[in-house]
Amino acid sequence: MTGVVVQNIQRANPDVVEALGACGVATVHEAQGRKGLLASYMRPIYSGSRIGASAVTISSPPGDNWMLHVAIEQLKAGDILVLAPTSPCTDGYFGDLLATSAQARGCRGLIIDAGVRDVADLKEMDFPVWSRAICAQGTVKNTLGSVNVPIVCAGAAVNPGDIIVADDDGVCVVARDEAEAVLEKAKAREAAETEKRERLASGELGLDIYKMRDRLKEMGLRYV
Amino acid sequence: MTGVVVQNIQRANPDVVEALGACGVATVHEAQGRKGLLASYMRPIYSGSRIGASAVTISSPPGDNWMLHVAIEQLKAGDILVLAPTSPCTDGYFGDLLATSAQARGCRGLIIDAGVRDVADLKEMDFPVWSRAICAQGTVKNTLGSVNVPIVCAGAAVNPGDIIVADDDGVCVVARDEAEAVLEKAKAREAAETEKRERLASGELGLDIYKMRDRLKEMGLRYV
Amino acid sequence: MTGVVVQNIQRANPDVVEALGACGVATVHEAQGRKGLLASYMRPIYSGSRIGASAVTISSPPGDNWMLHVAIEQLKAGDILVLAPTSPCTDGYFGDLLATSAQARGCRGLIIDAGVRDVADLKEMDFPVWSRAICAQGTVKNTLGSVNVPIVCAGAAVNPGDIIVADDDGVCVVARDEAEAVLEKAKAREAAETEKRERLASGELGLDIYKMRDRLKEMGLRYV
Amino acid sequence: MTGVVVQNIQRANPDVVEALGACGVATVHEAQGRKGLLASYMRPIYSGSRIGASAVTISSPPGDNWMLHVAIEQLKAGDILVLAPTSPCTDGYFGDLLATSAQARGCRGLIIDAGVRDVADLKEMDFPVWSRAICAQGTVKNTLGSVNVPIVCAGAAVNPGDIIVADDDGVCVVARDEAEAVLEKAKAREAAETEKRERLASGELGLDIYKMRDRLKEMGLRYV
Amino acid sequence: MTGVVVQNIQRANPDVVEALGACGVATVHEAQGRKGLLASYMRPIYSGSRIGASAVTISSPPGDNWMLHVAIEQLKAGDILVLAPTSPCTDGYFGDLLATSAQARGCRGLIIDAGVRDVADLKEMDFPVWSRAICAQGTVKNTLGSVNVPIVCAGAAVNPGDIIVADDDGVCVVARDEAEAVLEKAKAREAAETEKRERLASGELGLDIYKMRDRLKEMGLRYV
Amino acid sequence: MTGVVVQNIQRANPDVVEALGACGVATVHEAQGRKGLLASYMRPIYSGSRIGASAVTISSPPGDNWMLHVAIEQLKAGDILVLAPTSPCTDGYFGDLLATSAQARGCRGLIIDAGVRDVADLKEMDFPVWSRAICAQGTVKNTLGSVNVPIVCAGAAVNPGDIIVADDDGVCVVARDEAEAVLEKAKAREAAETEKRERLASGELGLDIYKMRDRLKEMGLRYV
Repeated sequence: MTGVVVQNIQRANPDVVEALGACGVATVHEAQGRKGLLASYMRPIYSGSRIGASAVTISSPPGDNWMLHVAIEQLKAGDILVLAPTSPCTDGYFGDLLATSAQARGCRGLIIDAGVRDVADLKEMDFPVWSRAICAQGTVKNTLGSVNVPIVCAGAAVNPGDIIVADDDGVCVVARDEAEAVLEKAKAREAAETEKRERLASGELGLDIYKMRDRLKEMGLRYV
Repeated sequence: MTGVVVQNIQRANPDVVEALGACGVATVHEAQGRKGLLASYMRPIYSGSRIGASAVTISSPPGDNWMLHVAIEQLKAGDILVLAPTSPCTDGYFGDLLATSAQARGCRGLIIDAGVRDVADLKEMDFPVWSRAICAQGTVKNTLGSVNVPIVCAGAAVNPGDIIVADDDGVCVVARDEAEAVLEKAKAREAAETEKRERLASGELGLDIYKMRDRLKEMGLRYV
Repeated sequence: MTGVVVQNIQRANPDVVEALGACGVATVHEAQGRKGLLASYMRPIYSGSRIGASAVTISSPPGDNWMLHVAIEQLKAGDILVLAPTSPCTDGYFGDLLATSAQARGCRGLIIDAGVRDVADLKEMDFPVWSRAICAQGTVKNTLGSVNVPIVCAGAAVNPGDIIVADDDGVCVVARDEAEAVLEKAKAREAAETEKRERLASGELGLDIYKMRDRLKEMGLRYV
Repeated sequence: MTGVVVQNIQRANPDVVEALGACGVATVHEAQGRKGLLASYMRPIYSGSRIGASAVTISSPPGDNWMLHVAIEQLKAGDILVLAPTSPCTDGYFGDLLATSAQARGCRGLIIDAGVRDVADLKEMDFPVWSRAICAQGTVKNTLGSVNVPIVCAGAAVNPGDIIVADDDGVCVVARDEAEAVLEKAKAREAAETEKRERLASGELGLDIYKMRDRLKEMGLRYV
Repeated sequence: MTGVVVQNIQRANPDVVEALGACGVATVHEAQGRKGLLASYMRPIYSGSRIGASAVTISSPPGDNWMLHVAIEQLKAGDILVLAPTSPCTDGYFGDLLATSAQARGCRGLIIDAGVRDVADLKEMDFPVWSRAICAQGTVKNTLGSVNVPIVCAGAAVNPGDIIVADDDGVCVVARDEAEAVLEKAKAREAAETEKRERLASGELGLDIYKMRDRLKEMGLRYV
Repeated sequence: MTGVVVQNIQRANPDVVEALGACGVATVHEAQGRKGLLASYMRPIYSGSRIGASAVTISSPPGDNWMLHVAIEQLKAGDILVLAPTSPCTDGYFGDLLATSAQARGCRGLIIDAGVRDVADLKEMDFPVWSRAICAQGTVKNTLGSVNVPIVCAGAAVNPGDIIVADDDGVCVVARDEAEAVLEKAKAREAAETEKRERLASGELGLDIYKMRDRLKEMGLRYV
């Protein structure tokens, strides 16, 4: 199954993708029942980004970034590259040249369970990356991988066309056919939080707002 | 011993707490004989904070943040929440809603040997957190823990009412009944350092200021 | 072999050192055939620095920073301190006082496979450090090490007088007698990249610029 | 999607499962094109086991082993339990009592991306386990998870009924509908290796057996 | 507080210590309410030991084993050495000579949040050790620590005279004044488990023995 | 410098190599002034081996074991293969076929800062390996490395022809031209230890044998 490029993948409604990004990772993750979170070692190379985008997936051999060149041709505006190596690797698969090329095609960023380099340039270009490592070690172009096949990236299953939500809290994936339902729940959650935030800011306690006192007593909590 | 909330804890003199915070972690840690430092994996979620505060401690089951709600009711102005899970966990126990509630009660921040989320919001609110991880994974509210009992947090024993000093170098705990003595030594240390800093800045060498040359020679250091 | 200070080491041409620093780690590492990179756990304590400097090496016992005082006397303007402990250690060997002393002698920074402290001060002083850890735990001054001997720092062999290039991507070492040849290749690489960057920015694909399509086909890549 | 138990799952032919187990992880992993390997931190709690078995999958909250009791009812002879927590956890989900129950139903072992305990007993019972950790910390039974749903375990996607091959080299998963084809390739591989092993044992070189000398020369390998 | 040796510490009843050891770590840890477990990175250097012993505690500087010599004089038959370094260290503090000396005084083993060496000899002597690392790197004898003071070892608070229980599952500490009560609960637990083990071995399900079906249904578990 | 095979390397006297191996890692490491130890993550794949051997070094790209085939041709009886990848990698570079080939040429084992597989077979063959990982993930044969060039392996500099000493404590390297001097010191150390072991076994204390009491008192140790 290696050595395959799937060209015509389906993408979710761009407005839904955008709106999921605006909700942020913590809200979206809760809204879809606490699934789809990538491992917490995936960190932004600079802080302050918050995006929603459509996944173009890449399965790459360790230390070989050839498939990134292949994947860039498959990008459409609003996409994000999502790369998983086939065994653990922290090499710098991606730098400012590839970012220039990806950005020219409308790519919104990169999620990579490996390393990146040229991070000062990427920050200046405002090309956000969430990665496992920052590492100047380059890669070769010798072995095939695949583009737009199902992958497991940082512990989460990602299919091409799934929605990636990423911010300073990490990275979450939403299945394409659940995107609208998740968005609805995420918005409901946001609305509920706004009201609670005001009550909490005024000094009201969560113990009262969420009516926890009785159950805590019942379970045996003792105040001494 | 689980399921206990100790309500009336003693706190140190607020001026002493404040002054210890101003000295910073490295100075306070040296001043008290190099003890009380939390493990260096405890990092600030954003840089530039320096605080002193009085500990309200929380012992929580892994992946369960119920006791945070209970603890917030126990907060007084100038306190800081200090949470240790009963087994290793990187879940995001704490986010912007809990921070809003804690801040409304005068809480100065959070020390947590686990994960936090909504870090962009926490930074905007200027609610400083030192944590083991940043992680959007939420928690449940199913199992009791305890509030204001002795805990071990990131390798250091912390008692309720102990003083927490935290800055970009990490986190240190000072025993409540040693606070004044430690502050005195910390201030003496700061004074001594000011004078040394000036001499070093002018080009004088530590080898001479600290009179190290004889002992180095005696121990056999050879210049070739 | 412990307990030795080598006083007269050779250094590369300062202009070459400076120019290598300006090229940056990723470019220099590629230019010298992908060798000399320190492990990627070596991270800057604050972002945005990019330097080239001449190594003064230090081999130190774990938790003992005595040799740093000895090494500072050996510094010349344009040097950088490079410290490797003789067994793994994250203690804070170095803080603002030592930085003041080193900076007074023209030192450009510190590479340390261990910990540093006073990082807020170091940032304010603009004294860049690449380290394995940030840790307030201090060290003692009891046991000899050596200065300006060959060391292995974060997995890379470093000799006194070698050139250190460091930026947000990490740290790379260039052998002193290869410095000019590496610089030449690095500059050639930069020139080539500028031209490629423009073509990529205009939307041309790497697949075409690097003429990859034939070889990918030959190796069996299938588009479906 | 949480809180679901899928009862009637399909399993592969028991003879195929058995035969895949006998081939071992390294051979099966190569035979299926180097996919399906679990992360190398998954280690046997005692050495010397080699098994093939049919996966009953479990998705569990961190620190909560309730679903293991539910899963055991779903076991048939020749099955293996495969558990992934929904966030990282090293607690001891499983010990000798659960093993006794599982073994009574014909279960061949456990693959768990978390901790186990009672390892001396498990070894005595010859109930093999591959786990991320050994840890005496117990778990609670408070929150639902799911049984026989698709999971990601230690970085590999596992579906109920997939074949698990595990030995001292680690753990590999084979998709149920590819089992026979993979077995055929694995056997061919074994046959080829037997012949090669004999030639290598007699002193013939891989360089000659695999005819590598020309390509090495062509790529520029220099003997000096 | 450094540089102190407490000579006359209280120890628990030797029969209770012995009996706690026989119960094993998992049982004792449960019996005392899931507290006192050392971090799971503490592993036996060889498998098959199960002990109960009375703690002689050591606080040592990193890379300095001087206090081990001091502590050995404080040992009585039935004791165990428990060492915590004051900052993280994997050096080999302890080898066959110190083990010979400790064993001559009736010491049952060593718990060390650092490294040991001569592990083949220690195994041959049957001197069990639970450690963070195995490392041939030696230590110096230059700086004071303390003996028989409260320490935090691998995340758990240990006082001199506390009972250490250790086996292949890890290490647990029991407070001296709770030893008898914990032993009683541990024995009750063992008795209950024996009966359950038999029922489970006969094929009865935990779901029925623990009457879980109703609560699972109530919480919404769906069988499909 | 990549793509080079150095054919005629010098080796130390076989009797010296053998004798160093018999002394063991801890003794040899001390005897040569505590240098040359590889990182403690290098662990034997099975316990009980103790060897001395002459290094044939390999520098390999990550995930590419081509150079192992090249290196095997360079082996003489009494040699050991020592492999360092050029960036961190845990792939299984080596298994039973390569071991068969190496063993046929008199190779004593493998030191590899990466992964190995077929570990049950290697144990049965009694082909000892010290590695960073056990991993069934195979490698490719696409990119050149070098054989018998200086490498850094697990943090230690190793030159071809250096002596490798390895046992259950880890791995140490001795420079070829220092081998005889180190052996002499190691033997003296062993002799001294035998006498001390007897005194310690008889109950005499290290405090007295090493005359530590006065210096401890002088430094301020207090008995309370």
